[in-house]
Amino acid sequence: MDLFQQLISELNLPKISYVKNELLLQQSTPINSLLFCQDADLTIFHINEHGKEFILGVDTNYSGPLGEMEFFQRKPYSTLNVKANKAGYLYKIPKLKLLELLREKPELTILLLEFISTRYNKNITKLMNNITLSARINVIEQILELKQHSNNPLFKIPVTLKAKQLGITDRCYRQILQVLEKENKLIKQGHEFELLDEKALKDEVLYTEVDR
Amino acid sequence: MDLFQQLISELNLPKISYVKNELLLQQSTPINSLLFCQDADLTIFHINEHGKEFILGVDTNYSGPLGEMEFFQRKPYSTLNVKANKAGYLYKIPKLKLLELLREKPELTILLLEFISTRYNKNITKLMNNITLSARINVIEQILELKQHSNNPLFKIPVTLKAKQLGITDRCYRQILQVLEKENKLIKQGHEFELLDEKALKDEVLYTEVDR
Repeated sequence: MDLFQQLISELNLPKISYVKNELLLQQSTPINSLLFCQDADLTIFHINEHGKEFILGVDTNYSGPLGEMEFFQRKPYSTLNVKANKAGYLYKIPKLKLLELLREKPELTILLLEFISTRYNKNITKLMNNITLSARINVIEQILELKQHSNNPLFKIPVTLKAKQLGITDRCYRQILQVLEKENKLIKQGHEFELLDEKALKDEVLYTEVDR
Repeated sequence: MDLFQQLISELNLPKISYVKNELLLQQSTPINSLLFCQDADLTIFHINEHGKEFILGVDTNYSGPLGEMEFFQRKPYSTLNVKANKAGYLYKIPKLKLLELLREKPELTILLLEFISTRYNKNITKLMNNITLSARINVIEQILELKQHSNNPLFKIPVTLKAKQLGITDRCYRQILQVLEKENKLIKQGHEFELLDEKALKDEVLYTEVDR
């Protein structure tokens, strides 16, 4: 994102502050500027027509554009909500100014193209895996990831957040955890969990095909 | 896509023929050129690590780029399979040639940016709906769409295709159809179906929130 940083300073854009929990992008509202964040902690989520929330991603220390998926469309409306998990600041590049810049600096446009298609690919792959794998396999994958990022044998499972990342209910998520406990693969110790049979869980992710 | 058409003729690219059922893009293989189709009928699908197939989309009379999601990445490998449902021809623009062109014609780059972000947005929205809605609601939405495109009260439901578009099994799909029949919303007549209570189905899609 070096070229973007350079751009922000070249354009002499003002810093715009935001507070913790502020919505930087709000679903269904028009997008008139491309936003650039610096070192942001973000939750990216979508609320469907029935009010059900789905968390597409959680980013920490993110620097880069926001809303680039919608910005280049004819009538851009935000598809997603982006919530700030800590206070920070961002820059706004108005549409006309950005288009002018892109015409002047094709290298920047190619960089943006590269950035957008990378994020596109990553998100599509993640969502397709979510759809084609069973809820159980998705939960096991999350548990193995939480364990991997923990320096301790004991680790927390933030059920509500993790369930929203899979588009399943908390109840369904807890049921899967209970089944794993019954199978002696996992044990709950107070508010934390410990893996009793990590290998079995890893093998299941690798080798099993389970219907949703 | 007018600019793309113009480009193809300017570059004097050769027509490359393909046959029915040929894979125009194959998952996990390197992408060295951007493909352009003219009036193609395509099935776009992904096979997960357990061999389960998911159909992301079926296009008819499609003219435009293929593989653009992966092409601009550093080491581009195809995420998807693209199968031709009828014979046709396409054009290949090699990476270096295209990058050279994009540097010369920023308007083309902006057009491509617009095209990619539109497809990105459409696919992400579709997949998020798939995830957050219950299998039942997804099936009902498909049935209503099939009915809408039929000029006849009787219409076919291609179960295997439709199940693969939702990432569920044929068995699960048939069970949902059976439940809808028991509820007198749908009736099977030979190989075709007829809606008995279209309003109830539409209302369910509009108002109900069902857990997956």
